[in-house]
Amino acid sequence: MAIKVHGIALSTCTGRVLLCLLEKGLEYEIVPLDLANSAHKKQPYLSLNPFGQIPAFEDGDVQIFESRAITKYLSRKYKDTGIDLLGSSSLTETTIVDTWMEVESHQYNVPMQKIIRQMIVNPAYGIASDEKIIEEELEKLGKVLDVYEERLSKCKYLAGDFYSLADLHHVPYLVYFMRTLKSSVITSRPHVNAWWKDISSRPASVKLAESMRI
Amino acid sequence: MAIKVHGIALSTCTGRVLLCLLEKGLEYEIVPLDLANSAHKKQPYLSLNPFGQIPAFEDGDVQIFESRAITKYLSRKYKDTGIDLLGSSSLTETTIVDTWMEVESHQYNVPMQKIIRQMIVNPAYGIASDEKIIEEELEKLGKVLDVYEERLSKCKYLAGDFYSLADLHHVPYLVYFMRTLKSSVITSRPHVNAWWKDISSRPASVKLAESMRI
Repeated sequence: MAIKVHGIALSTCTGRVLLCLLEKGLEYEIVPLDLANSAHKKQPYLSLNPFGQIPAFEDGDVQIFESRAITKYLSRKYKDTGIDLLGSSSLTETTIVDTWMEVESHQYNVPMQKIIRQMIVNPAYGIASDEKIIEEELEKLGKVLDVYEERLSKCKYLAGDFYSLADLHHVPYLVYFMRTLKSSVITSRPHVNAWWKDISSRPASVKLAESMRI
Repeated sequence: MAIKVHGIALSTCTGRVLLCLLEKGLEYEIVPLDLANSAHKKQPYLSLNPFGQIPAFEDGDVQIFESRAITKYLSRKYKDTGIDLLGSSSLTETTIVDTWMEVESHQYNVPMQKIIRQMIVNPAYGIASDEKIIEEELEKLGKVLDVYEERLSKCKYLAGDFYSLADLHHVPYLVYFMRTLKSSVITSRPHVNAWWKDISSRPASVKLAESMRI
């Protein structure tokens, strides 16, 4: 049975899963959801994701939700298809990938989610953006990226000299962020900028970005 | 060389690591930090955790930060010491543990962190609590726990009928939360309450809770 992703390509969480599928070169089907009619808040969707969020994922009999759990599953199940994304060669590498995945979740994702909501999502729905929130969260994001700048001066990717889920998880939000007037937050940091140029030019990232046009 | 945890037992993120060490029955040393003088924001600590947060962790030559990356490292490195905390027997179990660890990070941790800041941390520092934030975040937490209630009506623990990191990661915040006047958010949900009674009565959890007295 084919891999099914329930969601929409415009969603950054759905995008995280699609990017992993693209990196692995796996066939998949996007099952669109009628979000306007809150299909994700009702059955049968809630049986796939009880939190009523997108995406949800099916691989034959396997059903998973939470985008980062789905990418980990794909990286383990299809370890030998395409590149290894988990630093599986040693416990040390696995641990460094884990660490920078946690950094993405707990340091980067928190301000970035709020910035993208204010700068991309709200305008798309005709809702006014809150400039105060944008400025506050940009300041927090800048501090996080200062640590990234230092880190990326020592190695090409976040977990070392190999591309991994730790990098991949950052891509969907950055696709949107780099289209805003605040992209200098990235471009002004030379090593972060070089990292973004590298990871965004991967064929899978280019393909994902094409599908993320609001 | 002994395992070293740089942090303080009162910190919930430090507590997450200590609880994993206690479950595994491993020897460790807590290296206290002079937080009042911002030792965590200066060198040499920043070389252990570049984000200037606690905890940081050392196991011989291995240095790790981000509490959930540390617990995963411990669970892998000391897989055969004490109980398995990662659902390592199959990809399906590993994936379900991953999923509920992500739920902890992205659904539960977000409101819980704000509630504990307002109800426990601020009063300890003589800062007024914001009742509006508490009420808003309690409502969000309640919705998350409604999903937990349904989940825990089907299995004893979050990832199935076995205790795992998915449960363990919830413990430190709940230790504090259950001492507040809002503990009925847990006790009013029978399956969540039974789960909490079970996981909080584990010897490791009891020992951790004893060290979390403000």
